[in-house]
Amino acid sequence: MVFTDIATRTHNHNWRLDPIVRSLLDTDFYKLLMLQMIRHLYPDVEATFALINRTTSVRLADVIEESELRAQLDQARSLRFGKKELIWLAGNSFYGKAQMFSPDFIDWLADFRLPDYELHKSDGQYELRFHGPWTHTTMWEIPALTIVNELRSRAAMKGRGRFELDVLYARAKAKLWSKVERLAQLPDIVISDFGTRRRHGFLWQRWCVEALKEGLGSRFIGSSNILLAMDADLEAIGTNAHELPMVLAALADGDEALAAAPYRVLADWQDHYGGNLRIALPDAFGTAAFLRNAPDWLADWTGFRPDSAPPIEGGEQIIRWWREKGRDPRDKLLIFSDGMDVDSIEATYRHFHGRVRMSFGWGTNLTNDFRSCAPFATDGLDPISLVCKVVEANGRPAVKLSDNPAKATGEPDEIARYLRVFGDAGRRAMDVRV
Amino acid sequence: MVFTDIATRTHNHNWRLDPIVRSLLDTDFYKLLMLQMIRHLYPDVEATFALINRTTSVRLADVIEESELRAQLDQARSLRFGKKELIWLAGNSFYGKAQMFSPDFIDWLADFRLPDYELHKSDGQYELRFHGPWTHTTMWEIPALTIVNELRSRAAMKGRGRFELDVLYARAKAKLWSKVERLAQLPDIVISDFGTRRRHGFLWQRWCVEALKEGLGSRFIGSSNILLAMDADLEAIGTNAHELPMVLAALADGDEALAAAPYRVLADWQDHYGGNLRIALPDAFGTAAFLRNAPDWLADWTGFRPDSAPPIEGGEQIIRWWREKGRDPRDKLLIFSDGMDVDSIEATYRHFHGRVRMSFGWGTNLTNDFRSCAPFATDGLDPISLVCKVVEANGRPAVKLSDNPAKATGEPDEIARYLRVFGDAGRRAMDVRV
Repeated sequence: MVFTDIATRTHNHNWRLDPIVRSLLDTDFYKLLMLQMIRHLYPDVEATFALINRTTSVRLADVIEESELRAQLDQARSLRFGKKELIWLAGNSFYGKAQMFSPDFIDWLADFRLPDYELHKSDGQYELRFHGPWTHTTMWEIPALTIVNELRSRAAMKGRGRFELDVLYARAKAKLWSKVERLAQLPDIVISDFGTRRRHGFLWQRWCVEALKEGLGSRFIGSSNILLAMDADLEAIGTNAHELPMVLAALADGDEALAAAPYRVLADWQDHYGGNLRIALPDAFGTAAFLRNAPDWLADWTGFRPDSAPPIEGGEQIIRWWREKGRDPRDKLLIFSDGMDVDSIEATYRHFHGRVRMSFGWGTNLTNDFRSCAPFATDGLDPISLVCKVVEANGRPAVKLSDNPAKATGEPDEIARYLRVFGDAGRRAMDVRV
Repeated sequence: MVFTDIATRTHNHNWRLDPIVRSLLDTDFYKLLMLQMIRHLYPDVEATFALINRTTSVRLADVIEESELRAQLDQARSLRFGKKELIWLAGNSFYGKAQMFSPDFIDWLADFRLPDYELHKSDGQYELRFHGPWTHTTMWEIPALTIVNELRSRAAMKGRGRFELDVLYARAKAKLWSKVERLAQLPDIVISDFGTRRRHGFLWQRWCVEALKEGLGSRFIGSSNILLAMDADLEAIGTNAHELPMVLAALADGDEALAAAPYRVLADWQDHYGGNLRIALPDAFGTAAFLRNAPDWLADWTGFRPDSAPPIEGGEQIIRWWREKGRDPRDKLLIFSDGMDVDSIEATYRHFHGRVRMSFGWGTNLTNDFRSCAPFATDGLDPISLVCKVVEANGRPAVKLSDNPAKATGEPDEIARYLRVFGDAGRRAMDVRV
């Protein structure tokens, strides 16, 4: 006799919607850390976020049905933080610290919901924008990205047979496990999952996290995804992002205030968070300019997350700065998170081993590497470079220069002004694949 | 909410036995073809079959629990042909022929059950023997092999975690699919599954068959496994085996009768079966001897299945013989089935393409290639060379010489006598891995 769970099968073939985002915790940990500070210091700032597809050759509006995209965005808007989720946020320790989130902030989260969105098609792409208080629009970044990325994966797999999908996932698992085996050869590797935003899908990200746990043990330190961290009792990993200096820079009056904005953000940050959360992103307006003018107290911070310079070059630049400030880099931490994969992780690890503490935030190439895995012809499973960036704050344009001009965002005039203020030193265009 | 099918989960963790053989049709098709002839011509012959592990370095009795082995053998003995199985055997066409099995034979099968077995341990190996009428002991060959092979696989996986097993099967699937993709490059390949006896497990064999169907379409012509053929509406593939000439040779009185035995079997065979079932196995006592003395009428047969000579050498030898008999090899068929894998299939295909019709019986390297797939240290999943051979007929020892002395079976004195009768020409020792 063959037994089939008839209710499950019937449900699987009839559901109204297979939700991509099922919890407001299915987001990156840094969003909540930043949100608590934003709500405290900048509760009245209005910020607009926008989806930007840097892989323009992929015409997302031709791939993803608008009705499906709207249904998923609407579904995400229907979510609230669950009771046990808030209890966990209040009761769990993060980075060794109890009560990371204040009771007042937790209370506020209980009423949180994602604000409305604006969606249009233009030239084969979606224009997806979120207007409103920074305290709310900031929370769209990750759900917007996971929804669009996962709808694209689903489109590439639509109508494919059970067997083809079986081979696809078997190959993807075999591929990822080979990577894990290579990383396991590095005795002091420290790695975390940063792959939420560009993941192939939620279930696949969960499998990838499980693989890292199995293969690396305690050398896998956790996930940026709060939901996965909660479910699997992992550390939630992350600190802050470019949106902080970008908004503060946009709000700055005059060039002098603009030049000071990146450091003002970090001063705010260290008022709120200590210890290992004191990680600076140096590249919002170019790492060279940032380090040249950085205050001495920044050398007391735990470390840096170079996020657009080539890892070895960017790391050396920061190590030189620490030395100039009289610090021993061996006491300091570098977190590498820009499009890393096993080759670059190995090379970076070997280069810096013993000279500085290192950790790797492994993103797209962890949770969305299906290249050559499909037993059918498609490029719809190759990852694309999709971001959701702040583009305006209180009606003023926001800019990111980055160490890599290919990752810059903002209006040309404003970019020109920022380049006048921060200079162009050390910036170099490189391919952005993920 | 998480829904779990509680009944299924409870059953999965509590079953008395996970049966390896669940149907008497879970055997090779040639067994039934041979059985019908044996029952017709040799109903009173007693034949003893014995398990022989040619990979002596693997101490099966240390790996497999005797109680588990007995439980599985007993379970197989409890089986009968099912009603719908007999209806299918009677109603299906095989090799394009309706009523391949006589109504009288089908009636007889309805009462069939596997006879008793004798099991002892000796020096780390199992001595597993089946005594009784040839009509019954012959049917133990495949179930005995699948049971021992699968119990060995299970032992290697026992206690392994859900994740490790997931990676194991993902890699095995990825590995097999890569092989299928290579074979799909050969436009005229004709291939069938011969992997029942040495399979990793029944479910895995089913997956492998599905992969060949998906990847090769009509170039995959079927499975030797009758149950899989029935379930998936595939052709059941197979003709005859060494046991026929081995028993007839054992029964022969004197050297002259011995020398004639291999041809007498084939004369019997062509009285029973026609067309594409007229495939001769030339190597029971050495291909060179067999061809030298073969009757002219054998050149009318569809083809040969060289099963122990190196494929290209063995094929060329037979092609020369066809030419000597004035036949065009392009009208003839060679079936290669001795330890084939993609490399040797490709080489053989390319060598003979356009010169002779070819088909490949892909066995162990199809259904049991888990080499390098386990994410844990084990050699328990590497296939071994296990056979179940006739060793006695009516109390007289049976012998196989083979083209490869490493595949010879029988008592030394008898082997010496056979070598006197048939000669040693062309025989060459080679590693037997599977």
